[in-house]
Amino acid sequence: MVPKAESDARISLLQQRLRDEGIDGALFVYAVDVYYFTGSRQNALLWIPAAGRPLHLIRRSYSRGRQESVIDDIRPFPPSREFPDLFSGDIRKIGVTLDVLPVQQYRFYKKLFHGREFVDISLINRELRSVKSPFELEAMRASGRKLCEVFAQAPSFLKPGMREIDLAAEFEFRLRKSGHEGYLRMRAFNQETTGLAVAGANAEVPGCFDGPLIGKGLSAAAPFGPSSDAIKTNVPIVIDYGIVFRGYMVDMTRIFAFGRLAPELERAFAVAIEIQAWLAENLRPGRTWEDLYSEAAGLAAEAGLQDNFMGYPGEQAKFVGHGVGLELDEFPVLAPKFKYPLQGGQTIAIEPKFVLPGLGAIGIENTYAVTENGGEKLTEFPDEIVYL
Amino acid sequence: MVPKAESDARISLLQQRLRDEGIDGALFVYAVDVYYFTGSRQNALLWIPAAGRPLHLIRRSYSRGRQESVIDDIRPFPPSREFPDLFSGDIRKIGVTLDVLPVQQYRFYKKLFHGREFVDISLINRELRSVKSPFELEAMRASGRKLCEVFAQAPSFLKPGMREIDLAAEFEFRLRKSGHEGYLRMRAFNQETTGLAVAGANAEVPGCFDGPLIGKGLSAAAPFGPSSDAIKTNVPIVIDYGIVFRGYMVDMTRIFAFGRLAPELERAFAVAIEIQAWLAENLRPGRTWEDLYSEAAGLAAEAGLQDNFMGYPGEQAKFVGHGVGLELDEFPVLAPKFKYPLQGGQTIAIEPKFVLPGLGAIGIENTYAVTENGGEKLTEFPDEIVYL
Repeated sequence: MVPKAESDARISLLQQRLRDEGIDGALFVYAVDVYYFTGSRQNALLWIPAAGRPLHLIRRSYSRGRQESVIDDIRPFPPSREFPDLFSGDIRKIGVTLDVLPVQQYRFYKKLFHGREFVDISLINRELRSVKSPFELEAMRASGRKLCEVFAQAPSFLKPGMREIDLAAEFEFRLRKSGHEGYLRMRAFNQETTGLAVAGANAEVPGCFDGPLIGKGLSAAAPFGPSSDAIKTNVPIVIDYGIVFRGYMVDMTRIFAFGRLAPELERAFAVAIEIQAWLAENLRPGRTWEDLYSEAAGLAAEAGLQDNFMGYPGEQAKFVGHGVGLELDEFPVLAPKFKYPLQGGQTIAIEPKFVLPGLGAIGIENTYAVTENGGEKLTEFPDEIVYL
Repeated sequence: MVPKAESDARISLLQQRLRDEGIDGALFVYAVDVYYFTGSRQNALLWIPAAGRPLHLIRRSYSRGRQESVIDDIRPFPPSREFPDLFSGDIRKIGVTLDVLPVQQYRFYKKLFHGREFVDISLINRELRSVKSPFELEAMRASGRKLCEVFAQAPSFLKPGMREIDLAAEFEFRLRKSGHEGYLRMRAFNQETTGLAVAGANAEVPGCFDGPLIGKGLSAAAPFGPSSDAIKTNVPIVIDYGIVFRGYMVDMTRIFAFGRLAPELERAFAVAIEIQAWLAENLRPGRTWEDLYSEAAGLAAEAGLQDNFMGYPGEQAKFVGHGVGLELDEFPVLAPKFKYPLQGGQTIAIEPKFVLPGLGAIGIENTYAVTENGGEKLTEFPDEIVYL
C-alpha cells in the first residue's frame, strides 16, 4: 500500500535529520509511526539508524507484517538476550517519540537498549509527517471525495425532530459503507472523538475536547459528540466529521437548518467564510503558523466576535486550524506561540467557528493543502448553509 | 451519573491500598481513571491523598466538570507556581498509572511535584477497577440488553453476498441508535479496535490485535475488522462487537451462516460451548485466573484442537477471557502466569474460539460477572449458530 520509494524517501529525510541532530538512530514502536515508515501497522519495533539499513522487528503478526512491510530487513521480534548483538555498533544516542510512549514501555526499551541515552524526537517526527508527498495528497483527495459524497446525502436523511444520535448513526452508516476505517487516530494524550452531529444549545456546551465545538454527548462518561436530544427547527445543525481511508483522513464541517436562522448567526457565518477565504489565500510556504492565527482572530475581533471565536465565551480553543493526515491532530497548528513557517504539502483543517450563547454554534471547516498558490481545497463541496 | 456514595467507596478502597503500600497519595490524569473516581471525564488532575479529602483540578472544561464531578473540592487547574503551596504537606511518595502515562506527561508532572518520588500504581488501579459494584453491574446489564437487541436484529439485515463492511455498517448503525457511545476504550499501548464482522477466510488471518480473531480490515493502515470483500455462503460469519453505554461496555460474539457449515466447524463450535460452560460454572471467587485458562486450553487439547485454540495455528492468543468494564482490556485476564484469585463482582468476556485454516473461524463470546454461584451471564442471548 505504501510504495517502496515513498518509504525510502521518508526514511532518508529522517536519517538526514538524525545526523543533523547528532542522534545515532530512531526507535519507533508507536503503531502509526511504524506504519508511516514501513507500510505495516502490526505490533513491531522499527529501528532506523542515522545511516544504513532500517530493521523491522515484528512481534505480532509476523506473517502479516512480512507481507505488508516494504523494509528490506524484516525479522521476528527476537528474545531480549539477542538485542545486545543486534545493536552492537557505535550507538549512543537513540531518538524516541516521548509524546506517546508510556513510561512502562519507555523503561522496557531503556532496559533492552541498556547504556544508551534516549532523546525525544517527537517534534522532528511530527514535522516530517506534516509534509505530504504527492502520493499522500492523492490519498487525502480520495478521502475528501468520499466525505463530500456523504455530506451531499445529508439532506436525504436529516429529518425534523430526529435525535442527534440518529443523525450521527445515519451519517456514520454512510461513512462506513464508503470505506471509512472507523478509528480517527489522535496523537495527543487523553484525546478521544467520535464526530459531531449537534444542534442548537447542545453545540454551545464547552468540554474536554481541544476544539471549538464539543457537543453534549450521551453521558458524562462520553461527554462529546451527539446526544439523544431531538433536533429543533430554526437552530444551526452542525455536522463535523472526519473520514479515514487507507489511513489518511480529512475533516470538514457544514451547517444545516430546518426553517430560518437568526441574523446574528448568518452574520457570524459570513465572518467565518471571510476568515476561511483569507486563510486559504495565505496557506503558502513561508507564512508563519502563529501569524495566520493572529490574522484570523483579528478578523473575528473586527467583526466584534472575539469572545465567540472558536468556542464558548471564556472557554475558547486557541487555534483556527490543525494538521491532518494519518492523525487528526498533526502539525501544523495555526495557534499562538507556534513560530514555524508553513511548508508546501502540509495539510490543514481550517475551522473558523463561533459560539453565540443562546443561539447555537456556526462556522465552516475544510481541509487544505499548502501550495505556492495558496490552499488547495481537499474537501471540494459548497460552503453554504443548507436550509431544509 | 456516578453517585456520590459510589465515588466515596471507590476512593476509600484506594486510600486503604495506598496506606498499605506506604504511598502518600495518588495522582490521576488519564481520563478514564479520573472518571472512575469523580464521575467526570474532563481534562483534569485528580489528587487522592492516602487519607483525607481528594482534590479535583479541572483544566478543561471547568464549568462542565463542576456539574459532573461528585468530588467536594473542585477547582480550576492552577498555574504551576501555586502547586508547591497546594501540595505542601508531608507528601513523599506519589502513585501514578505508568501503564498509560506518556513520558512527556510524566516529566511535566514530575516537575510540578518536584522532589517527590513517583511510583507505579497501575496494578492497584486495575485490580480495584476490576471489581464492579452493584451500580456498575446494573449498568453492564443494561449494556448487555442493548447489545443483545442488536444481535437479535442481525437476521433482518444479513444478506447473502453483502460485503463485510456493509454488515459492519448495519450493525454499528443499530448500536449507535441504541445509545452506543462509540469509542471502545482500551488501556494497553497500541491497541485499537472497531468490532468484527468477518467471514470465511477473512476471519482466519492473524494480525496485530491481541485477540483470537483480527479480521482482514480495509487496508494495511487499519488491518483489523471488516474488509470490503463479499460474504460467501457455507462459511461462518463472525459478528463480535462491544457496546458502550454510560461508559460501561460488554462484549459478545455470535456466528451466523448462509447455507451449511463443515462438520469440523460445528464440532469445534460444540467444544467452544463446552469450554464456555465449564468456565461459566467456575467463575467463582478464589479460582485462579491462570488455572481457568489452563483448564480451557486442556479441554481444547482433549478435543484435538490445541493448535486451533484462540487463533491461527502458531499465532494464537494466549488467553481465553478478558475483563471488561470502562475499558475493553481490564483485569482479570484468564491467561498463563496470572496467579491471582477471582473476586466476586469481576466481569469477564469469555471467548473460546477456534481457527480452522481453510474453513474459517468459529466460537462464542459472552460477558459474565463472577459470583458465588458461578458466572452471571450479562449478555443473555441464545448461543447457537444462526443459520439463515
